[in-house]
Amino acid sequence: MNQAEATSTALAPLRLKKNEERRLRAGHLWVYSNEVDAARTPLTAFAPGQPVLIEAANGKALGTGYVNPHSLICARLVSRDPAHVLGRSLLVHRFNVALALRERLYPQPYYRLVHGEGDALPGLIVDRYGDVLVVQFTTAGMEQARDAVIEALQKVFKPAGILLRNDSPIRALEGLHSYVEVIGAVPDQIDLEENGVRFRVSVQAGQKTGWFYDQRENRARLARYVKGMRVLDLFSYVGGWGVQAAAAGAREVVCVDSSQDALTQVAVNAELNGMQGRVHTRKGDAFDVLRELREAREHFDVVVLDPPAFIKRKKDVKAGIEAYQRINQQAMQVLAKDGILVSASCSYHLEPDTLQQVILSAARHLDRSVQILERGRQGADHPVHAAIPETEYLKALYCRVLPA
Amino acid sequence: MNQAEATSTALAPLRLKKNEERRLRAGHLWVYSNEVDAARTPLTAFAPGQPVLIEAANGKALGTGYVNPHSLICARLVSRDPAHVLGRSLLVHRFNVALALRERLYPQPYYRLVHGEGDALPGLIVDRYGDVLVVQFTTAGMEQARDAVIEALQKVFKPAGILLRNDSPIRALEGLHSYVEVIGAVPDQIDLEENGVRFRVSVQAGQKTGWFYDQRENRARLARYVKGMRVLDLFSYVGGWGVQAAAAGAREVVCVDSSQDALTQVAVNAELNGMQGRVHTRKGDAFDVLRELREAREHFDVVVLDPPAFIKRKKDVKAGIEAYQRINQQAMQVLAKDGILVSASCSYHLEPDTLQQVILSAARHLDRSVQILERGRQGADHPVHAAIPETEYLKALYCRVLPA
Repeated sequence: MNQAEATSTALAPLRLKKNEERRLRAGHLWVYSNEVDAARTPLTAFAPGQPVLIEAANGKALGTGYVNPHSLICARLVSRDPAHVLGRSLLVHRFNVALALRERLYPQPYYRLVHGEGDALPGLIVDRYGDVLVVQFTTAGMEQARDAVIEALQKVFKPAGILLRNDSPIRALEGLHSYVEVIGAVPDQIDLEENGVRFRVSVQAGQKTGWFYDQRENRARLARYVKGMRVLDLFSYVGGWGVQAAAAGAREVVCVDSSQDALTQVAVNAELNGMQGRVHTRKGDAFDVLRELREAREHFDVVVLDPPAFIKRKKDVKAGIEAYQRINQQAMQVLAKDGILVSASCSYHLEPDTLQQVILSAARHLDRSVQILERGRQGADHPVHAAIPETEYLKALYCRVLPA
Repeated sequence: MNQAEATSTALAPLRLKKNEERRLRAGHLWVYSNEVDAARTPLTAFAPGQPVLIEAANGKALGTGYVNPHSLICARLVSRDPAHVLGRSLLVHRFNVALALRERLYPQPYYRLVHGEGDALPGLIVDRYGDVLVVQFTTAGMEQARDAVIEALQKVFKPAGILLRNDSPIRALEGLHSYVEVIGAVPDQIDLEENGVRFRVSVQAGQKTGWFYDQRENRARLARYVKGMRVLDLFSYVGGWGVQAAAAGAREVVCVDSSQDALTQVAVNAELNGMQGRVHTRKGDAFDVLRELREAREHFDVVVLDPPAFIKRKKDVKAGIEAYQRINQQAMQVLAKDGILVSASCSYHLEPDTLQQVILSAARHLDRSVQILERGRQGADHPVHAAIPETEYLKALYCRVLPA
């Protein structure tokens, strides 16, 4: 008997109710708390993050995972092989599988390296910035495996530094506290390249892990729409869309963000690419700025609308849809007569069809018609697990807005 | 009163039943036969293709269109302005709007120029091959406007030749007969360029209009997956995917098609790009060839599966889904251990989610797991009318298939 088997044999069982193993058998990795046979294996008996052997009602092992009695998603499957537990050797294997995909697709080491369930590693996010890895643990189970994760990352990637950005608000759902920790050397500013354009970001002070790799392919798609055009980049953050638009030949770009730090970084990034003459910034709330631009009768050939998630939880859907509708309509009001609106949403709870309805409805209000030219999703380094719809969240619609 | 007004005043009215104007008001362009107020304006009173003024139940004009009493879709809206009828001046305007988009997006004049309802021209398809236009009329109303269409095309594009490929089986739904007609000079073979790769196609003898422009962006997306790889191109036709894969650096490409003419053209196209050493052909039914390849234990790093529509009508859905499932499963059986399956469907009646289910289910049968890396749709020269789901039909899923 090898060590892994010895370990898994020792795992406490988590028994499901009758028929509740079906989601797992169909490929999903989550167990909800109402699916557990609480008489046989009460959730209260488990510590947050405790490794378990997940069993069907008939006692057959479904695989190993970890539990969190305080979360609605009370357990996540880690391996369908009961002999494999969440430890260094499983992590090294999964990291190598994740790396093989990224090395196949990207010429340089700037990408999301591990996308949680999408890479069969529930609760773990790793973004790679060359030899610095920025890590997020989003579940108690992965937090508990912290030492094994760090060891496995060091073994496979030999990074100069690892930054634990464990300050995401979603950790609260798992009862986890917020902390940031540096292991090794993590510089304050890091350079990366995306679609041939250079950016400098702060992985310590920036939003999320410092950069949003998920829009890479969508930003690449923007290039052919902007040559010689005037472009508005709303919620620009550090200029991911705007500076790339300028590099692709936009005549003028205006980046709008409410954060002065972000706009200062836009200027740095524009200059890094020799685009400072064509990239301007404007500080303010996007809704307000759009109202001002409209009153000033300003028009743009292309408007990029990439807001933060207006819908963070299911209960926000109605208010969120209204906000999306309002901002899309305002964006259309500053579009030139034959203009392109790139409208994105990173809200998982906003279905792609609903975003399309929002755009269509905004257009009908303004007596415009809409051609949908392209539909973008999150980049290939954010793989979607085919059986887990929750691993897909990003949408970007490329719309041509015309008089009706 | 100008001429257009005079004409539209003379149009026969088509009166809808109460509340049946709602689809049109929401932006759609179709009227179904059960929505017509048959007491006031019996469909039997109209000739196929006859221009009409479409009216709401209260008599308010909704716009101009044309009718076909023999079709389930008995009328299509052409203009919301009752003063504008389907004639040369409206066509010239719409062609210019359509052209503006293509000139913005494509460096060379090879594209779908008019995508029916997606370009606000119901019943009209125009593919552009440089100075040759290949045209399809798919409704009686557009067939009746034939002379105006040809005049408008000549005015805007001054083509060397126009080919009317009016031999699509869907014309039968409108009671139209099949014919092909050449106006001006249309050579037998025409060269085009797509994603920097050259192709020679026959617009007269080829499938549809000779080339499938709708996959252009999806074929471009294939490039980064194939470098140094062995690629299988199923239902290859004249090598659109396969020759581009070779040009992007694939080690070896095998194109499979049941038509010897198509495969002969694959060889021509490979040679046009100096790729003849790396592009091979194999004649046969894709299902049979996949069985033989599996028996011979052949494996490919990338398999492209771009079949003709297995579901042409709603009643074919069940049998069609089974066929998609079978061919996707067979394709996975010849994939290497960490392989990429590009699985496309041009069946409108196959929802994108259903295609994903088909792929997931095939994978579960073979004990594989699937990461969805990208989702492609039809190219931007096939614009989707935001209010008309029927204008969107193409799906391509880029899947990484791994051991479970």
